[in-house]
Amino acid sequence: MSTAASTQIHLASRPEGWPTPENFRTVRVTLPELAPGQVRVANAFVSVDPYMRGRMNEGRSYVAPYALGATITGGAVGRVLESAADAVPVGAVVLHQHGWSNVVQDDAATFQVIPELPGVPLSLRLHILGMTGLTAYVGLTRIASLQPGETVFVSGAAGAVGSAVGQLARLLGASRVIGSAGSAAKVALLTGKYGFDEAFNYHDGDVSELLTQAAPDGIDVYFDNVGGDHLTAALDAFNDGGRAALCGAISTYNAEGPVPGPDNMSNIVTRGLTLRGFTLGNHLDLAGEFQQRMAGWFAEGRIAYDETIVDGIEGTVEAFLAMMRGANVGKMLVRVG
Amino acid sequence: MSTAASTQIHLASRPEGWPTPENFRTVRVTLPELAPGQVRVANAFVSVDPYMRGRMNEGRSYVAPYALGATITGGAVGRVLESAADAVPVGAVVLHQHGWSNVVQDDAATFQVIPELPGVPLSLRLHILGMTGLTAYVGLTRIASLQPGETVFVSGAAGAVGSAVGQLARLLGASRVIGSAGSAAKVALLTGKYGFDEAFNYHDGDVSELLTQAAPDGIDVYFDNVGGDHLTAALDAFNDGGRAALCGAISTYNAEGPVPGPDNMSNIVTRGLTLRGFTLGNHLDLAGEFQQRMAGWFAEGRIAYDETIVDGIEGTVEAFLAMMRGANVGKMLVRVG
Repeated sequence: MSTAASTQIHLASRPEGWPTPENFRTVRVTLPELAPGQVRVANAFVSVDPYMRGRMNEGRSYVAPYALGATITGGAVGRVLESAADAVPVGAVVLHQHGWSNVVQDDAATFQVIPELPGVPLSLRLHILGMTGLTAYVGLTRIASLQPGETVFVSGAAGAVGSAVGQLARLLGASRVIGSAGSAAKVALLTGKYGFDEAFNYHDGDVSELLTQAAPDGIDVYFDNVGGDHLTAALDAFNDGGRAALCGAISTYNAEGPVPGPDNMSNIVTRGLTLRGFTLGNHLDLAGEFQQRMAGWFAEGRIAYDETIVDGIEGTVEAFLAMMRGANVGKMLVRVG
Repeated sequence: MSTAASTQIHLASRPEGWPTPENFRTVRVTLPELAPGQVRVANAFVSVDPYMRGRMNEGRSYVAPYALGATITGGAVGRVLESAADAVPVGAVVLHQHGWSNVVQDDAATFQVIPELPGVPLSLRLHILGMTGLTAYVGLTRIASLQPGETVFVSGAAGAVGSAVGQLARLLGASRVIGSAGSAAKVALLTGKYGFDEAFNYHDGDVSELLTQAAPDGIDVYFDNVGGDHLTAALDAFNDGGRAALCGAISTYNAEGPVPGPDNMSNIVTRGLTLRGFTLGNHLDLAGEFQQRMAGWFAEGRIAYDETIVDGIEGTVEAFLAMMRGANVGKMLVRVG
């Protein structure tokens, strides 16, 4: 038993509009010796995700707002360094929600031991084989009730969730998969590596017009990561009985005031549409089913992925801000020392 | 066999914004002798409904837009005057969609013979025991998946659909029913005759604040007849997992341009809400179940209703315009001849 140094990223102040480095503080602390029942974990990868922006605000969000002056919590994967709990032995790989630090210790019950999969990088447990993939799966199956033969549109399609949505939609039987992204390089990635039928760069014009060109026969399912004019475009493109899974609205996260909703909500009535929002915490009962199916698809080589990696826990804020600007391709992660 | 005079109300021009009498034309025609397979019907009551405003516009609506220079179609109930079809004999009571005229003739297949119910006025077959009641039933059961013990909010609650929603919600097990209406008299009607737990006049202040006062513990189901600030208020008041049945948005029907949607759409994600629109035509499979249950409740004296009646087919436009202004209590109807 010993003490240990930990570098943590704290929320220093609540962002107004776009976050800046000044909203965060890097803090070095000495962790005390483990108490009985605790474990100490060296993180391998730490996740930065769009939803975190919401938790930086005051008021009701996914869960409680982040506390000022405390480590920003979120998904991470690491290995047990020291243990005072038999169930979580030294050397075990664990998933946890302790967030933005390089070394963390807490009660063993707050860490989930996961089996190491031969040839599978640990980072994937934070995205395509983890919460990111599960988010795509829940949205398509439970929330949007995707049926074989349908046309699916996903926004933010080159992002972590979006690229999983496009591939899972195909594997679940969609006949046509359309994505939007914010650069020509990302569009090429979508129609190439990720096998989308159509993709467009939303900077190239009016999103409704671009979507109509990409989906002349309309869409049945929309997986929304973006909100704003993308949701409006989807409401115009929906066939009767269309369903939207609303996962997030990165276009609005940094707005300093209320953002007006789509100006074509009347389509919801006339076309019999369903808009359903979700956060993953209410749908973890699908995790087992997802892991089984996804492991099979992954083993068959049917799942592509990208990662954008920033090295060092001190780069976490930079990684988060770059992800909010859309600088990442695939999952944005911090690789810890 | 003989010819017959018919007075019809035609759409003369498409309204821009609020409709005016000049958008309509009263036309007197002579109907020819019946062809084989046709019947002639003298209407008893003709329905004027909010959705008709949508069909007066060009472009995609519930169904095709109304044709210019033709009778405005919609629900009506009448009695067969002459018949050249065995299945629809003289004297039978029929429901049909031929709309705004006093006498109509067409193929027998376009008329639905319904049994006369002792002591039940024919007018009710156009509302509480007809499409209006079915609309409320479909919205609460299939669209919003109302569960016993939940809190229901309905806007436009003193209207035809709204007053049915409030009563059916209670009969289906809601623990608390809240309504909004546009006058103090209507509010008194809601909490009196219709048995709502709470009601408010939306002219009395900010709708979100009024709803929060009426539903301090939040709402689970919202039946939307109004749209606009009522939908925004509901999104703020929803408990996690709340569901909205979007039936119409009378607040927006006469807008001359696009109407921005709610500025709090993010609640859909964070609270896991579902917004689902519907038009009755896709849910007529529930008609049998509805009629059976509703007839039972009605016979037990558990259903109250109101009608606002305008006399004479020439008064149809006046009735429609008054309904759009909210001048009616309960179902607005035209009593013919």
